[in-house]
Amino acid sequence: MDFPDYYRSTFTPAAEINHRLAALQSRLMEEGLEAALLHQLVDLYYFSGTAQQGFLFVPARGEAILFIKKEFTRAREESPLSRVEPLPSLAGLGNRLRECGCRVPARLGLELDVLPVGTFRFLKEILKFEEGWDVWPWIRSLRETKSAYELGLLEKAGTIAAEVYREVAEFIRPGLSEIEVAGWMNYLAMRRGHQNILRSRGFNSEIYNWHVVSGALGTLPSSIDAPFNGLGLSPAFPLGAGLKPIVAGEPVLIDFGTCYTGYQVDQTRMYAVGKPGAEFLEAYEALREIEAFILRNLQPGVPSESLFPLALDKGRELGVEAVFLGRPGNKIRYVGHGVGLESPEPPFLAPGHAYPLREGMTLALELKIVLPGGAVGFENTVAVTADGPVKLTTAAEDFLIL
Amino acid sequence: MDFPDYYRSTFTPAAEINHRLAALQSRLMEEGLEAALLHQLVDLYYFSGTAQQGFLFVPARGEAILFIKKEFTRAREESPLSRVEPLPSLAGLGNRLRECGCRVPARLGLELDVLPVGTFRFLKEILKFEEGWDVWPWIRSLRETKSAYELGLLEKAGTIAAEVYREVAEFIRPGLSEIEVAGWMNYLAMRRGHQNILRSRGFNSEIYNWHVVSGALGTLPSSIDAPFNGLGLSPAFPLGAGLKPIVAGEPVLIDFGTCYTGYQVDQTRMYAVGKPGAEFLEAYEALREIEAFILRNLQPGVPSESLFPLALDKGRELGVEAVFLGRPGNKIRYVGHGVGLESPEPPFLAPGHAYPLREGMTLALELKIVLPGGAVGFENTVAVTADGPVKLTTAAEDFLIL
Repeated sequence: MDFPDYYRSTFTPAAEINHRLAALQSRLMEEGLEAALLHQLVDLYYFSGTAQQGFLFVPARGEAILFIKKEFTRAREESPLSRVEPLPSLAGLGNRLRECGCRVPARLGLELDVLPVGTFRFLKEILKFEEGWDVWPWIRSLRETKSAYELGLLEKAGTIAAEVYREVAEFIRPGLSEIEVAGWMNYLAMRRGHQNILRSRGFNSEIYNWHVVSGALGTLPSSIDAPFNGLGLSPAFPLGAGLKPIVAGEPVLIDFGTCYTGYQVDQTRMYAVGKPGAEFLEAYEALREIEAFILRNLQPGVPSESLFPLALDKGRELGVEAVFLGRPGNKIRYVGHGVGLESPEPPFLAPGHAYPLREGMTLALELKIVLPGGAVGFENTVAVTADGPVKLTTAAEDFLIL
Repeated sequence: MDFPDYYRSTFTPAAEINHRLAALQSRLMEEGLEAALLHQLVDLYYFSGTAQQGFLFVPARGEAILFIKKEFTRAREESPLSRVEPLPSLAGLGNRLRECGCRVPARLGLELDVLPVGTFRFLKEILKFEEGWDVWPWIRSLRETKSAYELGLLEKAGTIAAEVYREVAEFIRPGLSEIEVAGWMNYLAMRRGHQNILRSRGFNSEIYNWHVVSGALGTLPSSIDAPFNGLGLSPAFPLGAGLKPIVAGEPVLIDFGTCYTGYQVDQTRMYAVGKPGAEFLEAYEALREIEAFILRNLQPGVPSESLFPLALDKGRELGVEAVFLGRPGNKIRYVGHGVGLESPEPPFLAPGHAYPLREGMTLALELKIVLPGGAVGFENTVAVTADGPVKLTTAAEDFLIL
C-alpha cells in the first residue's frame, strides 16, 4: 500500500513490538497461563502496532498471531508482526485459531476489566474455554514504563501542547465563552497533528480535553474523580468548558490533553485577562513549589504512595492545606497519575500504591487548589529517569496575565 | 445550586423521564423481570436526566431510585427523579439498596452488552444475585423512537451543523491539511455549543467527527464498517482526516457529526476547490436521487430492511451499482442507521432487520460512492413521521465548488 511518508513514519518499530510481546509472554509463563487472547484496540495497538479490529493470540511460547476482521490489508502493512491473518467472521474465530495452530487453553487470558459480559459469553461459547483469566494487571504493569521510542512520542505530544498553550494566549479575551476558547485550542492542536481521540480505559470513563474553566463556576465538582470539573454544556456531559464567558480578572484554568500517535500528555496552565486577585497568584506559586518539591523526590525506587503525604506536608508548610486538592469534602486522594496510551493509568501517587517508581514511568502531576472565586492548577507530565524527572510538557510556566 | 440559565434550560423535563421509566417498567413486567440495575452513563442520562456516576435501580413495580457515587448534589438538581440517594462507596451498594427498600432479585437486569466482566463479577459478589439478564435489547427498542422533546434537541444539533457546513466553505483552500479543516469545523461547532463527546455504544467502537477526506487517499478502507475511512494520522487511530493537503479539483468529503445536549446528528456534504471531474458530480447527483427515492419509501410500517434492496435497485437503475456503498469486496450492507444518544443505534436499513419503521425513529441515510480518484457522499439525518420523513440536517445540498 502506498502510504504517504507522514503516516509511514508513525509505524511502531519491530523491535518495540517484539520486546513488548516477549515481556508479556514471559509473564504468561511465570503465571502458568498457556495463552492470552487480546481484543481491546489500545492493547492491540500496543502489542501489534495496529489498531485495526481483531484479536491477537499470544501463546506463552511461540509466535503471536494477529487475526484481523477489518481491515486486513492495512493491518498487515501497519504491524511488524510476521503473522497477520484474515478473520472473515467473528463466529469463525475458533476455526481460524485451529487452522493457524493456536490452541485455546482451558484457562484463557482475556482483558476482563473491559471485555463486556456479552462478548465474553460469545467467546466462551465459540472457543470452548472453561475460565477467563484477567490479564490486564500484567499488561498494565508492562505498559506503565515507557521505552525511549514511547518517550519520544510523548515528547512530541508535549511540543504540540506547548505551541497550543503559547498561541491560545493571543486568542483569549473577555466575552468569549469557555467552550469557544477550548474549541480554538482543539483547532490549534489538530492542525499540528494532535490525535483528537483521547483514551481512558475504565467503563463509563470519558476523557476530554476541553477543560477550560473560569471563575467560581469553574470550581464545581462533577462526575469525575477530580477536585473540580467545571459546569460543562448540559447534564448529558456535565464537565469542562461551558457557555460561561471569560471575565476580566477571573482566573482561567486550562487543563488540555494532547495526543500524538496514541500517546497523550496532560498539562495545566493559568491565564487571566487583567490582573487576578492576589490569592490566585499566591496559590499558583504554592503549587509550583509543591511540584518542585515532588520532583526532588521523584526517583526510581521511591514508593509511589510516598509522594502523596510529602505533597500534603509541603502544602501544609505553605499554608494551603485547606484548599489543596479540592474543597473539604471533595478532596482528591492523589497528586499524580500515569499517562500514556490511556489516561489515567498506573502509577498513582496515592495512598495504597506501595510499588516503587521505575525508570520510564510517565506521570501527570495533578496539582490543584480550589478557592471561592476560582480554581487554580499547575500540572506537568514528567518522565522518571535515573538522572531525575524530565518534563515532557514544556509550555511556559508563568501565570499568564494578558 | 445556582446554575446559569443556559445549563438549566437543558434539563430533561420530568414528564420525559417518567414516560421512559414507565415504558421500561412495563417491559420488565411483561418479561417477568423483577428489577434492573442500570450503570452505563448514556442509559443513566436517558432514564434519570443526569450523567453523574452511579446506578439506577428500576423495579418492575414502584419507584426507581438513583444512587449517586459522584456528584450527588448535581445529580439531585439535574434529575427530576424524586428519589436520588448518595452512594458513598461502590462496595456499599448492597447495603444502600437494602436501606432504601430495593430488593435485588435472583435474576437481575443489567446492561450485559457493555458491562465489563470485572464489574459484573464485582456486582454479583456484593449483590448476591444468581443471574444477570441483558436488558439492552429492551432499552434499545425504547430509545429508537424519539419524543418531540428529543427531536427538538436533534433539530438543534442539525442547526449547529448547518452553520458549520456553511462557514467551513470560506475556510477550505488548497494546501491546508484535511486535519486542519476538520479542526476548524470542530472550533466552529464547539463555539455554538456542540458537545464534543460523540458516543458509540459498542466495545472498541470509537466515533469521531473529523472525517474530512480527499482525493484517492480518502477512499482507503479501515477498521470501521464503512465503505471507506480515510487514512488518519497514524495506526493508533487509522481513520478520518490526516495530514494530506487539500488539492484543487479533488473531491473533499466532509462527514461531520454534531451533538447537542447528548443528541447527535450525522451529515455528509461534498466540496471542491475548483471544478472536480464530472464523474464526481454525477456520482453525487446519483446519491441525491437515491436519497429522494428512499425518502419516498421511508414511512411508518415499512420493514426496515426493505429499504436496502430498494436503494440497490435505484443504484442499478442509475448505473452506479459497481461503486455504490464501496468498492467490490468492501461494500457495506446498510444504507442507513439510527442516531440519537449513541451512533449507530437501531433501526438499521439493512438485511436481517425485519422490524417495521415507526414514527419518531431517526436515521442517518449513509449514501456513499467510491471512485478511483476520491469518495463521494451524501448523508442526512431524518425523522420518520406519519406525514413523511423530516430532515433534521439542513445544510445546503449542492456539491459546493469553491
